[in-house]
Amino acid sequence: MSVKVAVVGASGYAARELFRLLARHPHAELVAACSRESERPLVGDLHPTLRTIVPLQCEPFDADSVAKRAACAFLALPHGAAAAAAAPLLAKGVRVIDLSADYRLRDPNVYAQWYGASHQDVDNLKHAVYGQPEFFAEEIATAILIANPGCYPSSAQFGLAPLVAAGLIELDGIIVDSKSGVSGAGRSPKPNLHYPECNEAISAYSIGTHRHTPEIEQLLTDLAGSPVTVAFTPHLTPMDRGILSTIYARPKRPTPQKALVETYRDYYANKPFVRVVDELPSTKDVSGTNFCDIAVRVTPHYIVVVSCLDNLLKGAAGVAVQNFNLMFGFPETTALVG
Amino acid sequence: MSVKVAVVGASGYAARELFRLLARHPHAELVAACSRESERPLVGDLHPTLRTIVPLQCEPFDADSVAKRAACAFLALPHGAAAAAAAPLLAKGVRVIDLSADYRLRDPNVYAQWYGASHQDVDNLKHAVYGQPEFFAEEIATAILIANPGCYPSSAQFGLAPLVAAGLIELDGIIVDSKSGVSGAGRSPKPNLHYPECNEAISAYSIGTHRHTPEIEQLLTDLAGSPVTVAFTPHLTPMDRGILSTIYARPKRPTPQKALVETYRDYYANKPFVRVVDELPSTKDVSGTNFCDIAVRVTPHYIVVVSCLDNLLKGAAGVAVQNFNLMFGFPETTALVG
Amino acid sequence: MSVKVAVVGASGYAARELFRLLARHPHAELVAACSRESERPLVGDLHPTLRTIVPLQCEPFDADSVAKRAACAFLALPHGAAAAAAAPLLAKGVRVIDLSADYRLRDPNVYAQWYGASHQDVDNLKHAVYGQPEFFAEEIATAILIANPGCYPSSAQFGLAPLVAAGLIELDGIIVDSKSGVSGAGRSPKPNLHYPECNEAISAYSIGTHRHTPEIEQLLTDLAGSPVTVAFTPHLTPMDRGILSTIYARPKRPTPQKALVETYRDYYANKPFVRVVDELPSTKDVSGTNFCDIAVRVTPHYIVVVSCLDNLLKGAAGVAVQNFNLMFGFPETTALVG
Amino acid sequence: MSVKVAVVGASGYAARELFRLLARHPHAELVAACSRESERPLVGDLHPTLRTIVPLQCEPFDADSVAKRAACAFLALPHGAAAAAAAPLLAKGVRVIDLSADYRLRDPNVYAQWYGASHQDVDNLKHAVYGQPEFFAEEIATAILIANPGCYPSSAQFGLAPLVAAGLIELDGIIVDSKSGVSGAGRSPKPNLHYPECNEAISAYSIGTHRHTPEIEQLLTDLAGSPVTVAFTPHLTPMDRGILSTIYARPKRPTPQKALVETYRDYYANKPFVRVVDELPSTKDVSGTNFCDIAVRVTPHYIVVVSCLDNLLKGAAGVAVQNFNLMFGFPETTALVG
Repeated sequence: MSVKVAVVGASGYAARELFRLLARHPHAELVAACSRESERPLVGDLHPTLRTIVPLQCEPFDADSVAKRAACAFLALPHGAAAAAAAPLLAKGVRVIDLSADYRLRDPNVYAQWYGASHQDVDNLKHAVYGQPEFFAEEIATAILIANPGCYPSSAQFGLAPLVAAGLIELDGIIVDSKSGVSGAGRSPKPNLHYPECNEAISAYSIGTHRHTPEIEQLLTDLAGSPVTVAFTPHLTPMDRGILSTIYARPKRPTPQKALVETYRDYYANKPFVRVVDELPSTKDVSGTNFCDIAVRVTPHYIVVVSCLDNLLKGAAGVAVQNFNLMFGFPETTALVG
Repeated sequence: MSVKVAVVGASGYAARELFRLLARHPHAELVAACSRESERPLVGDLHPTLRTIVPLQCEPFDADSVAKRAACAFLALPHGAAAAAAAPLLAKGVRVIDLSADYRLRDPNVYAQWYGASHQDVDNLKHAVYGQPEFFAEEIATAILIANPGCYPSSAQFGLAPLVAAGLIELDGIIVDSKSGVSGAGRSPKPNLHYPECNEAISAYSIGTHRHTPEIEQLLTDLAGSPVTVAFTPHLTPMDRGILSTIYARPKRPTPQKALVETYRDYYANKPFVRVVDELPSTKDVSGTNFCDIAVRVTPHYIVVVSCLDNLLKGAAGVAVQNFNLMFGFPETTALVG
Repeated sequence: MSVKVAVVGASGYAARELFRLLARHPHAELVAACSRESERPLVGDLHPTLRTIVPLQCEPFDADSVAKRAACAFLALPHGAAAAAAAPLLAKGVRVIDLSADYRLRDPNVYAQWYGASHQDVDNLKHAVYGQPEFFAEEIATAILIANPGCYPSSAQFGLAPLVAAGLIELDGIIVDSKSGVSGAGRSPKPNLHYPECNEAISAYSIGTHRHTPEIEQLLTDLAGSPVTVAFTPHLTPMDRGILSTIYARPKRPTPQKALVETYRDYYANKPFVRVVDELPSTKDVSGTNFCDIAVRVTPHYIVVVSCLDNLLKGAAGVAVQNFNLMFGFPETTALVG
Repeated sequence: MSVKVAVVGASGYAARELFRLLARHPHAELVAACSRESERPLVGDLHPTLRTIVPLQCEPFDADSVAKRAACAFLALPHGAAAAAAAPLLAKGVRVIDLSADYRLRDPNVYAQWYGASHQDVDNLKHAVYGQPEFFAEEIATAILIANPGCYPSSAQFGLAPLVAAGLIELDGIIVDSKSGVSGAGRSPKPNLHYPECNEAISAYSIGTHRHTPEIEQLLTDLAGSPVTVAFTPHLTPMDRGILSTIYARPKRPTPQKALVETYRDYYANKPFVRVVDELPSTKDVSGTNFCDIAVRVTPHYIVVVSCLDNLLKGAAGVAVQNFNLMFGFPETTALVG
């Protein structure tokens, strides 16, 4: 059995990974790739690595046309544009997995505050499901609209969930110091992403103001049952892919190292894509995979958690396919291992 | 006027930078390069970039021989070995700038605790001067033994000094999350420093246990007049050089952003090598220089400081030459700008 | 239907990629991983990225034990050691895919000349099949011993085969200027592979003396029916993976650009892993894939060919699995696309 | 004694290196920095690394204004724009060092053919001196207009000059296979220079059509006294700086390796910035320096030369300052060593 799928927004890095994963998915049939390019390039022209793998020509997005052919659409569009595409697709019965931020924040006021524009699809926002499969597998299975999580938030949420769920830490001002590869900043050339500018250089940006902050807090607040606040600092790191978040949390009470590791192991038992490891992980351990690797350390002042994942896979296209698997009843790991 | 100098321990990266700086120093004359290599290589054989610049043959270290020729010795040796070389040199009247950790910690018990061996030269330890010129220029001018600071500690100390000196922050559990280029780990090949292992990868190490922790705390405690403790996490970053420390401190009271920047500017007025900048700095801004660039941000929970420097220059060889300049009465910036 | 396979020599990069590909291969069952480590690590201890994917414990190599369990063994061993393991496995009926150089050169004297030791398994050498599937698919299908090609040779052979087969170029002194990522040099730490030495650096090595030279020449001589000689220069390039070979051949007669491209397209029609492309390819287009991408340009003095592949996949583990597919009757692309 | 200098075109990488070198030059006084930016940024705003080192505000270019203040102008402008600025400066008596290609090719028809536009300043072109100090030191000393050489051409010219001067090689179709760091492509963001596109990737470009081809040929033809033609292939290499050219020349007659090296050593005796080395050099050996390192190897078919330099220094700003030193009677190495 095969599900017909479309990818809307074909030119970015997450789209490239989506195409690659879907091309090898035994139960997905890629029927449409939509992009704004007027000359209707082949997917392989946009992404030379996909030549001969995805022999599909791009087309302008048309909700009717997509709805006639596809049962599921992945949206790899900028926020704003995503909601504009999602609404008509949903209206025509297409299930949507949106990789943008448009449906991640439940409260449209919070969205407006962080994204600088009022939300354009409040109706669908109400029933959108936050597509973090390790927490919401059941809701995802029946969802028609998935808000695929952000890359930074995922690394923070996986690192902190066992702590907040178990009530082990103070919930205000948790520090999330994240280091991301440059692909996380997108494919549009910019001065600060020019090779000789960001090669051999690490820098912090958006200190205290990054839009992923409320997304991190929203899920953790749900898990904690009380408001959680984080101090989040992203860094641009000279590598293609990968996010490593170093997290500092103040323990409520002394917890031995060994028990803490057990708490994590128990929490993620039966979660095939979260690996609690003993040695401190490197982004390289998860690069090209859908894994999130986590290590935890008790230190004099803080519980320090290191959480890493591939921003384009577990942080974007990989989890999108994981959501797709859950939505359509395929084994969760289909096309995602190896 | 020219001072005759020796470099003891010629093969590492800090030694390479020392040679380079001393070769262009108008008032330093390099008279000896000591290394263990039995075949007595040229400095240019150890460091091809220095061919024709430093036409000196290495010799085994002999304190007498060095003392006959040099008024000042830079030690670029592992800890332990450094003290063993410093003691006889000092006894013969050579002024010593030690780039190792051997004389950085005033308390030999703290040294023993962190370095796993009792201190072998407690006598000289008593009069060693911590070679951080921005804080101890006067003591350095007359010192005969300089403990050249560690690379991570310098980035943390410059970032935090104005805050602790002004009493603006809580002094316990200050978080220093540091990202270092791989040259900071030395020149000996190791599995984790093998190119395909650390390229395209970032990872944390020695969480809560790194030896630079007490060095950071010692200076800040002096400046604060009360015990300061830090939670220090170093990271191995895929680049040659540079350290960026992201520092999280809890403010004692609200301080406006603008006033905070002024505090930093005032504190480092007349310090030519510390630049308080408005935009968040990149390690690339200081790579190849003796500068430490610092930016500071007030956020809801923390004062966040970003401090960066070149680990081999302001974090090692550059500050060593800066100390040399102060010790021998040359302008502080000689050979260090441009 | 599933074939039981063993990987002998588990710790290197090619082994890591073999494990990864075999773990996702629907018709391969990994039954043994052999390595010298006395503490019998898990494969995931050697390669953290494979944790939970390859839950296998390493064992010392024992031909009897492997032969009892596996129908096919992949040897990822140094040359010399490979022949020592292949012989007993073959004697016990195990089909062998050897990733070393031991069975690539037909003439044991040539082997001795380039590898500095006499060949230790001349008997099996006689019936070994050179595992370049684009040229020898039939022979591979029935082979019991495959000499898996070298990474540099594959890039040169794919780039030159259409030219020598069509008699379009002079056959002596063809220049192959190859640039390889550092993983091609293996996983053992060495001074020249230490991150701060080869990062931000490109250098040539083994000019005119690299062991892959006779392997390139042997296949091309077969295809040409006359002796082919190459001038081969490898370069160490600051990236993990990928080989790009820039090839300069003197045309025997003028050939228009368009006709030349057609010659290549015809030659590789029905070869799913060789892509003749119009735009000059980047190693990134093939990184992580089993493709070899080739572009060709007619210039005033030379036909210039650019050929690139992933040294660990199409240049090692990928083609090994491709050979495995052919040997055991599976579709050639199984586990190799996407 | 100090010469007042201006830098016209302040925002690129070569300009940044010019500023850095001139700031430390004991006999240069930087009096003007010209750029098109209407907001008149500080040089340190364009190049954060230069903050406090070059405390100069940019101004729009005005030939009169520059001529009133400066005796020498460095032009770091695109071709075309450079000639438009040079002509009025020369008319007002300013000596000009032009880093663009505008005055490198003696024949304006060749310029027109390769640069796609007719030359706009043929009058000055007639007396321009090609600023390769190792060959034209005398002419440079009295020149009023210097055509500063291109980065690729310099690496090729230094590698080939001893061979063509001694008549050792065939002069047609010499192969120059060059690998350049990305800074050579300039500072303007472009899709192919976006970090995630060129990181972990090497690719060839402009095969047989690169504009530096006639510049290489012109000088070598002069040195040979007969027409020299080259087949030049540049490659974009994932590193900031450095060019390594691998050169293949057909020997006219057998030349022993040792004699060949002596030929090179003799040729470059007394040339402080060209180092003939025994071991194959890496771009890292010359990165950040004004050196060109060269090694040569006799192989069965070709003499292979490896020549490397820092494209921004010996390939641009460094040689510009070297020319400045010669023009104004300062020691050739001033500000260029260490």
